[in-house]
Amino acid sequence: METDLKSLARNAAQGAQKLAQVKTAAKDAALRAMAKALREEQDTILQANTKDLEAGKANGMSNSLLDRLKLNPQRIEDMAQGLEQVAVLKDPLGEIDRGWRHPNGMEIKRVRVPLGVIGMIYEARPNVTCDAIGLCLKSGNGVLLKGGKEADYSNQAIAQLLSTTAYENGIPHGVIQQLPGDRAMVDPLIHLNDYIDLIIPRGGAGLINYVLAHSTVPVLETGVGNCHVYIDRSAEVDMACRIVLNGKVQRPSVCNALEKILLHRECLPSHMGPLLSELSAAGVQVRGCPRSVAFSPQITPATESDWGTEYSDLIVAIKVVDSTDEAIDWINHYGTRHSEAIVTNSYQDSQKFSQRVDAAAVYVNASTRFTDGFEFGFGAEIGISTQKLHARGPVGLPELTSVKYVIAGSGQIRE
Amino acid sequence: METDLKSLARNAAQGAQKLAQVKTAAKDAALRAMAKALREEQDTILQANTKDLEAGKANGMSNSLLDRLKLNPQRIEDMAQGLEQVAVLKDPLGEIDRGWRHPNGMEIKRVRVPLGVIGMIYEARPNVTCDAIGLCLKSGNGVLLKGGKEADYSNQAIAQLLSTTAYENGIPHGVIQQLPGDRAMVDPLIHLNDYIDLIIPRGGAGLINYVLAHSTVPVLETGVGNCHVYIDRSAEVDMACRIVLNGKVQRPSVCNALEKILLHRECLPSHMGPLLSELSAAGVQVRGCPRSVAFSPQITPATESDWGTEYSDLIVAIKVVDSTDEAIDWINHYGTRHSEAIVTNSYQDSQKFSQRVDAAAVYVNASTRFTDGFEFGFGAEIGISTQKLHARGPVGLPELTSVKYVIAGSGQIRE
Repeated sequence: METDLKSLARNAAQGAQKLAQVKTAAKDAALRAMAKALREEQDTILQANTKDLEAGKANGMSNSLLDRLKLNPQRIEDMAQGLEQVAVLKDPLGEIDRGWRHPNGMEIKRVRVPLGVIGMIYEARPNVTCDAIGLCLKSGNGVLLKGGKEADYSNQAIAQLLSTTAYENGIPHGVIQQLPGDRAMVDPLIHLNDYIDLIIPRGGAGLINYVLAHSTVPVLETGVGNCHVYIDRSAEVDMACRIVLNGKVQRPSVCNALEKILLHRECLPSHMGPLLSELSAAGVQVRGCPRSVAFSPQITPATESDWGTEYSDLIVAIKVVDSTDEAIDWINHYGTRHSEAIVTNSYQDSQKFSQRVDAAAVYVNASTRFTDGFEFGFGAEIGISTQKLHARGPVGLPELTSVKYVIAGSGQIRE
Repeated sequence: METDLKSLARNAAQGAQKLAQVKTAAKDAALRAMAKALREEQDTILQANTKDLEAGKANGMSNSLLDRLKLNPQRIEDMAQGLEQVAVLKDPLGEIDRGWRHPNGMEIKRVRVPLGVIGMIYEARPNVTCDAIGLCLKSGNGVLLKGGKEADYSNQAIAQLLSTTAYENGIPHGVIQQLPGDRAMVDPLIHLNDYIDLIIPRGGAGLINYVLAHSTVPVLETGVGNCHVYIDRSAEVDMACRIVLNGKVQRPSVCNALEKILLHRECLPSHMGPLLSELSAAGVQVRGCPRSVAFSPQITPATESDWGTEYSDLIVAIKVVDSTDEAIDWINHYGTRHSEAIVTNSYQDSQKFSQRVDAAAVYVNASTRFTDGFEFGFGAEIGISTQKLHARGPVGLPELTSVKYVIAGSGQIRE
């Protein structure tokens, strides 16, 4: 299997060198043809998906997981539209983002180029297969996809259709490779430094931490979000409740959902009551620090492990703090550098919080739920980077590229 | 020792959070004070350096290594001037490189911030200690330095003086930490993911490959350069000889020095003679492919391992190729993605070469020796990145930073 993987990866790398030279118009035409094929061949994909769903049911998969796995005509239409949206995005390749003349007359340009080959390791819904293929194709990268085994029939059907259609529309052979959805593929994949330029793991903390600890290929860390809202003493009650509710309840399973509330002690009497009644009405289980617990029997004691946990569920933990400084230090200690928010009317605290909190996205008086490539106007995203290297925040097309310097001389040598 | 390292790293991380908030003027004043201290305390540093030199001689260190290790008043003055140059460079922090308004009225800004803590692992001359400290301080990063044991007295003296002076001039405690120059420090250092954001190895291929294979902290790969000059059939003989000589002879030990010559077969009769006589006059040993060897007894046969080797010495290998395409494929196969050059008068070949060669810097009619932060006008550099992630080419101050998104709202929630 490892030998097969190596030759697949070599094919992807060779194909990617050719893909780097394919014109934007040809890539966009291929993306549109791929969208069309998805619509026309939707039955094939739905049949494959049915096999995954039946296996899932037989293995006792939960209803919420079955729902994430399930495809239907609307979800396939969404995937097709996603490809068409990528087709209209600006091609990042070839952009000259800097250029100048050396004193000796040479022209130095910095030109945007593809990364090469990207390895995607993911556990999520089958639409990730389609999204990743579209973004990698447009940004000129080859892609090796390793999805979850519970979605393998669906992923294979989608990738097979899209790669065949891409090839028929002039995209070089080998640039789209769906690997078996087998956990045993992960280890060889994350050590293929000769052919793979970047590994993107998408899924739970277990997968991401495993890849970070073991990969010798550079990794783009995505997605774990233990996000906080700090309610400053000057926060308006209504705004605080609105931002907390939206962060926690609108879609609790995603990485930019709210997980922790930090409440300035001076707000305890005025803000805790309304917050609790709204959270309770929305079915949210509330845990808290001793001062929170003392306020209301509705709050159960939080343990140390709560403060570092991403619940991804209708659970929230509340901590009472004495100052904005304490809130900032708390977030920098327990946070995952994803999305952090302050609700305040103080100019000084808003400045301090946005300057000192170390996270991909820092919000003043807005919901953490906005950290998203579409909300940021990038048109698409392959994940949210929580690392500082290469890309931070939503990862769109430009973040899937690198640069090179091209120097045009007339015989210059170094003195 | 590992516990000590952890607490040093924690100090560096805590100091770095404070350093991120220190104003540019204060950092620049500290850098100037550090330059002054270097000049005033030069005897202390020279005494420490003498200990390293004596140990080196006793251990049979080669003269060229002793020369790299040796400090003198001029080299200390160069280090001091280096710090003063960094003081006048633009502070990259706080730059808002993008900003826009979300349709719902939120303002989204992308702001440049420090990486955090950088771990430098290096084997080179003691001036690297000073250069790295200056660049990390200005870019707001803490730094843990692990130099070579043969330069440990010098490195410790330099770092001690600079960190004390920095602290006396308002730089937070702990941000500059010189570790013992002990190989055993490498392994714990490259696994300190909780406190270190980036590892930069500088030295030979052995060190760099070890760090790449074992580090769980993200790595910036620097420096190995198996650089080629391809002499196209339309190349002027004089220009080709000038660029080859400059690349090979001006400073053979550096990473942007020339290591391989690819010669179009149509140039063999006209260009090989002049090239060989100039290389020979400069004392360069020449190896070659069978067609080169057949041309002159001065050329000894190259083995397969030659083609992938960075000699860093007065040795070069010549390969005759049949076309520009073959030269490009050869470079993409054997090159290290550092600096690659073509000498040509063909517009078409110059375009093809610069588009298709995959390297940090691609030259048309100029010497590979220009890949350098100073030559590129960056004012300083901490190394040359040969990876595609995060930074490619010379790594200056902006490449030592990350970004964060700061979003200013008025109560917005996601629908």
